[in-house]
Amino acid sequence: MVDQGISVSNCSFSQILDVDLELRGGDPFRRYIIFTHILSVSNIRAFSSTINRRATPSTPARPFPGEYDAPKIVSAIPGPESKKLSQELDKRQDTRTQHFFVDYKKSKGNYVVDADGNVMLDILCSIASHSIGYNAPALVEAARSEEWVTALINRPATGVQPSTTWPGVIENGIMSVAPKGLNQVFTAMCGSCANETAYKAVFMHHMRKVRGDAPYTQEELQSCMKNEAPGAPNLSIMSFKGGFHGRLFGSLSTTRSKALHKIDIPAFDWPQASFPALKYPLEQFEAENRKEEDRCLKEVEEVIEKNKGKVVGLIVEPIQGEGGDNYATPYFFQKLRKITKEHDVALIVDEVQTGVGATGKFWAHEHWDLDTPPDVVTFSKKMQAAGFYHSMDLRNFNTWLGDPIRALQASVIIKEIKDNHLLENVQVTGEYLKNGLEKLRSKHTDLVSNVRGVGTFLAFDLPTPELQDKFLRILRQKGVEATGSGTRSIRFRPMLIFAPKHAQQFLDLAEEVLQQLKA
Amino acid sequence: MVDQGISVSNCSFSQILDVDLELRGGDPFRRYIIFTHILSVSNIRAFSSTINRRATPSTPARPFPGEYDAPKIVSAIPGPESKKLSQELDKRQDTRTQHFFVDYKKSKGNYVVDADGNVMLDILCSIASHSIGYNAPALVEAARSEEWVTALINRPATGVQPSTTWPGVIENGIMSVAPKGLNQVFTAMCGSCANETAYKAVFMHHMRKVRGDAPYTQEELQSCMKNEAPGAPNLSIMSFKGGFHGRLFGSLSTTRSKALHKIDIPAFDWPQASFPALKYPLEQFEAENRKEEDRCLKEVEEVIEKNKGKVVGLIVEPIQGEGGDNYATPYFFQKLRKITKEHDVALIVDEVQTGVGATGKFWAHEHWDLDTPPDVVTFSKKMQAAGFYHSMDLRNFNTWLGDPIRALQASVIIKEIKDNHLLENVQVTGEYLKNGLEKLRSKHTDLVSNVRGVGTFLAFDLPTPELQDKFLRILRQKGVEATGSGTRSIRFRPMLIFAPKHAQQFLDLAEEVLQQLKA
Repeated sequence: MVDQGISVSNCSFSQILDVDLELRGGDPFRRYIIFTHILSVSNIRAFSSTINRRATPSTPARPFPGEYDAPKIVSAIPGPESKKLSQELDKRQDTRTQHFFVDYKKSKGNYVVDADGNVMLDILCSIASHSIGYNAPALVEAARSEEWVTALINRPATGVQPSTTWPGVIENGIMSVAPKGLNQVFTAMCGSCANETAYKAVFMHHMRKVRGDAPYTQEELQSCMKNEAPGAPNLSIMSFKGGFHGRLFGSLSTTRSKALHKIDIPAFDWPQASFPALKYPLEQFEAENRKEEDRCLKEVEEVIEKNKGKVVGLIVEPIQGEGGDNYATPYFFQKLRKITKEHDVALIVDEVQTGVGATGKFWAHEHWDLDTPPDVVTFSKKMQAAGFYHSMDLRNFNTWLGDPIRALQASVIIKEIKDNHLLENVQVTGEYLKNGLEKLRSKHTDLVSNVRGVGTFLAFDLPTPELQDKFLRILRQKGVEATGSGTRSIRFRPMLIFAPKHAQQFLDLAEEVLQQLKA
Repeated sequence: MVDQGISVSNCSFSQILDVDLELRGGDPFRRYIIFTHILSVSNIRAFSSTINRRATPSTPARPFPGEYDAPKIVSAIPGPESKKLSQELDKRQDTRTQHFFVDYKKSKGNYVVDADGNVMLDILCSIASHSIGYNAPALVEAARSEEWVTALINRPATGVQPSTTWPGVIENGIMSVAPKGLNQVFTAMCGSCANETAYKAVFMHHMRKVRGDAPYTQEELQSCMKNEAPGAPNLSIMSFKGGFHGRLFGSLSTTRSKALHKIDIPAFDWPQASFPALKYPLEQFEAENRKEEDRCLKEVEEVIEKNKGKVVGLIVEPIQGEGGDNYATPYFFQKLRKITKEHDVALIVDEVQTGVGATGKFWAHEHWDLDTPPDVVTFSKKMQAAGFYHSMDLRNFNTWLGDPIRALQASVIIKEIKDNHLLENVQVTGEYLKNGLEKLRSKHTDLVSNVRGVGTFLAFDLPTPELQDKFLRILRQKGVEATGSGTRSIRFRPMLIFAPKHAQQFLDLAEEVLQQLKA
């Protein structure tokens, strides 16, 4: 755009997009830079109004049919109806973590409607799990099709009696967005299962390399039945402090987010290393951050050396999405890839929360520009289907092997992301929101700090856990559903259809909350 | 029936059922006895033809609309179409365990139709996961409803943003069949997850008892972050040799079915005890079997004593459904309940495969007539929803907390089981099939042995793993889809709508296979 000398403020959004589409063949990183560059703060409001006026399929922020205009609060949250339902459910299930009960029939696009009729802008989205809008028309239509009904009510043991439609669903859906260099996929039920089965795959793959063509020994066959080495080998998956990888026994042994997630549960004695604690904005602290990243990389190497031959996998989130929205730079991940390669440690990238577009690329690790791909990339949440991409020869098995109906849902989500240019929408909206957050920060320096993130996967910090809690409570009463990350961050996990106008609604309400916190 | 002097051979099935229904208020065990007693071998064929002629909703084996009459084989299995699909999928996933590809649109009732148009009687049913028939009309209708569509495409993080419909779905569906004495349910994604989250619950519950009202110590909070005791306590769940409880890291540490399930995967050093190796038929070997069960019970106590304070849970299947269809008597389970109570060890009954009607009762452990209920009962497969019943105070959490669409499916399945008296159908068909198998055994004593089971959860043995394999391969080519259990058993895991006529089709084809094995 800039290279071609077109004046940004005079061109329509669809023109920009056309140029962007032409650039698709080129370097995606360069394309991203151009795109975000032209959308500077001074221009964004003009774009935003252009976006809101237009409704062609090629605009990133195509209006969601029937979406609410704004939050609308009619009761305290949770209101009397939510409280009644909570009392009812409490006899059967723990309700302490629940915010309110949702009327999913009435929820539309970016807005969630609760049992009492409160309409809230949702930037939590069932912990980053929704993508193309509540009751997205494409999903409603698909759900009524014979193909979906058949898949839903006849869930097969795919490892034994797979559906005739399965190879096509995998090929045209989940595999159509496979990370570069990974040509296979293992499907599972949820994010924790995706990580656990990935660890199993890594262990089996490692042992196959060690064993070569030799058959299992009698000692291995017998000892594994007693949960003893060598059959049940003393191997480990290392992870980073602050990382979150799930709550089952293997995945929880790699989770290091907070004590409440881990306490009272037996764990494998798998090791950990420090994750960089960077200073924001990154551009301002380059030298310091580089030093911090080098320190952590050194620690990774030391842990591997210290546990020589035992650490066979390392799992890392592109952004620590539960442990405080902690970032590292592409440099860090490039070095991490190099270290893991050198030590024959499988690099497992946990994209359960970062994947499927939230960072403005389909996979967050695409931002790293790696020479060789990760060994494993796990997914769930926004994909609705769960599992992991890889290139290993596997014998991983269980009854369901994932759920075909969720694989079908993934196909529709992927198609909507492509057809409606939702990655571009995330880039545009993310830039707009980030700039708005920076303004809040410069206005409220005593409260807001560390604005950070990529795409709409953004966060900022408040001074204390108490203020984090208070901010979220007041914000909800004003009509925004959100949660924190770590002990003092506010995180953004909106859908991919979150447009600048939604971002502006958040910014206006956040300003009110911050004023209230000061008062 | 017998008490009331009605001549069985002269009364219609619906009359018998009416009497049965009157008995519902009474002792269920007595009802079962009466029911199976009247259905002696000599009468069963008369009933069977009565059943097949009648189509009122009150007959257990109401004909499935549009069901095929019999298996129909048109190609080798797998045929050319299945092989083509397998080659296609093999680029993306391991296909080695797959039998053939299924056309789920064409499959009906008890018959599965493969990619090549072969119609097979299915007694495997995606490893015991189907219950009310392929494309059951009640499920087709429900799947098209707005309620299902909404639940399917807006899957919530139920622990945070549950649906307004959730309390009702839980109460009227899954909780309506809660095992006696258990008043809460934790929902999960699959059988392995159900067991893993149950273990977590048991560990947390134990630690809460130990800790009392005291807060977590700093040492606990810090050590758990390093996967070390006391925060990550050195506690265990014990299990039985031959047991199968799933394939994730915690559940796999309790699985003891075969080495191929466990080898190369790190495991917790959790202990095991022997499961009784009974002789069949049980009635003939009462004294010997009692001795064997006492031996195993003693071992259980020894393991608990040896690991004093460390074993806080014990998991057991009512029937070891992967490890060889091994049974124990109610006496064994009653004693097991007594021992676990005395030692404050939580008794976890894994009903993932045995639950939801296959034994002629909704839960297999209802056959045991326990004084106090198990502490935990886990479920999945035929329920389609997964999770565990319990009575503990919990703080177990994850993103999905199960899948509401599967809870809705469970509700329909439960209603169909009740409305169509499918438990009674299982009792009738099971008795018929077991008698037929006994006839096969007496005719082919060199090949068939150890006919055993309850309801249609039946099995018999062949002399060797090679003959087990050969029997299954020839049987499939004749139009029956089945698998083995353990190394030489053939297992029955048909749907709850499996009627005597289907059983007879199996028996006729099995006779042919046995003849062929002799030739």
